[in-house]
Amino acid sequence: MTDCGADPGGSAGNRRLGVLISGRGSNLQAIIDAIAAGRLVAEVAVVVSNRPDAPGLERARRAGIETAVLDHTAHASREAYDRELAAVLRRYGVALVCLAGFMRRLSAGFVSAFPNRILNVHPSLLPAFPGLYGQEQAWRHGVRVSGATVHIVTPELDAGPIVAQASVPVHDDDTPETLSARILIEEHRIYPEAIGVVLDGGWRVQGRRFMRVGGSRAAGSAGRESAP
Amino acid sequence: MTDCGADPGGSAGNRRLGVLISGRGSNLQAIIDAIAAGRLVAEVAVVVSNRPDAPGLERARRAGIETAVLDHTAHASREAYDRELAAVLRRYGVALVCLAGFMRRLSAGFVSAFPNRILNVHPSLLPAFPGLYGQEQAWRHGVRVSGATVHIVTPELDAGPIVAQASVPVHDDDTPETLSARILIEEHRIYPEAIGVVLDGGWRVQGRRFMRVGGSRAAGSAGRESAP
Repeated sequence: MTDCGADPGGSAGNRRLGVLISGRGSNLQAIIDAIAAGRLVAEVAVVVSNRPDAPGLERARRAGIETAVLDHTAHASREAYDRELAAVLRRYGVALVCLAGFMRRLSAGFVSAFPNRILNVHPSLLPAFPGLYGQEQAWRHGVRVSGATVHIVTPELDAGPIVAQASVPVHDDDTPETLSARILIEEHRIYPEAIGVVLDGGWRVQGRRFMRVGGSRAAGSAGRESAP
Repeated sequence: MTDCGADPGGSAGNRRLGVLISGRGSNLQAIIDAIAAGRLVAEVAVVVSNRPDAPGLERARRAGIETAVLDHTAHASREAYDRELAAVLRRYGVALVCLAGFMRRLSAGFVSAFPNRILNVHPSLLPAFPGLYGQEQAWRHGVRVSGATVHIVTPELDAGPIVAQASVPVHDDDTPETLSARILIEEHRIYPEAIGVVLDGGWRVQGRRFMRVGGSRAAGSAGRESAP
């Protein structure tokens, strides 16, 4: 990855989000709640689901947000699907695409249509445990610290520049479920924060490091700094 | 890895440590200090260096600890070296072998001579960034959280069961050096703690998870648990 200029998206005040879901949309709810509470200055322009029965659609409707269903089973190819998805998001004039439990890989074509303008939240401290079930992978591996990551989406799965991370402990008596619940709290906290940081601009990607210009501390990062 | 019984080492009150170094031995010093302060109930029986000029040897002598130099350049093969190393450690009757900046791979033969009785501390949140320069690898990757790991040594590099981990934040204005310094503080904190846990017994390795019997929280684990 080469260096990019600061705030490459050039959103110029546009803070409209397109949120993509496939299921319950708990991170969508966290975004909606953060906007309602004034912690995130943004507007969800549209929620798109690839599944007609995604419970997250109802969350969107309850919040008065427009929804679109793009059923992947009704499209001939990934490229055809992604073209229509990009068209919907452009129609709503979104500045940022936020994946929130969207269970589909995005084509390189889609990613390049929104350069540095697609975010995802992942339930592990990437680069550890990419792919599905990051929480259970971490639990099986026996780590004592796991967490959540918000990253810019690139064509390579779960490997784009990291905007924010937060750590959680793993306890001996954890199950994958109790660990997942602890990580989800952090996802809900850092995702809206990271969306705000990206919308604010004034950042750049250097090498593969996401940096706020001026070197201030990144959103969401958490961890001990105590002396021994 | 198959399941082991609880406290497979069966040290039966033996809390003698063999500490292996190659350089300055700052983690050796942390162990010495923790013992002196009563935070770690143990005795360093011998410090072994593969380099005659390792500054850590002087730390050991200052603390009245016996030292041995096993110069790797004077041995025909890794196996021959490791056989002599094992002989020295047995002669001192150590219950646990602690790597503290020991810059040599250990043979499978050596590892099997001290099953579940060799510990190492690594400057990253394993399994992320194994191998040399874990701090710089993490910095280059652009993670926002890194940390330190104490693990049981197995023949596969930096891949054994994890006894303790602690996380630290990565700041935008960090260099590999400032990040390394922050991680080192955590190494010095969790390594003596983890040594105590392993010496205490009452643990087992299940799958590849290190667990204290009874499910209490593991030593050294750190991370946020805050609600959003």
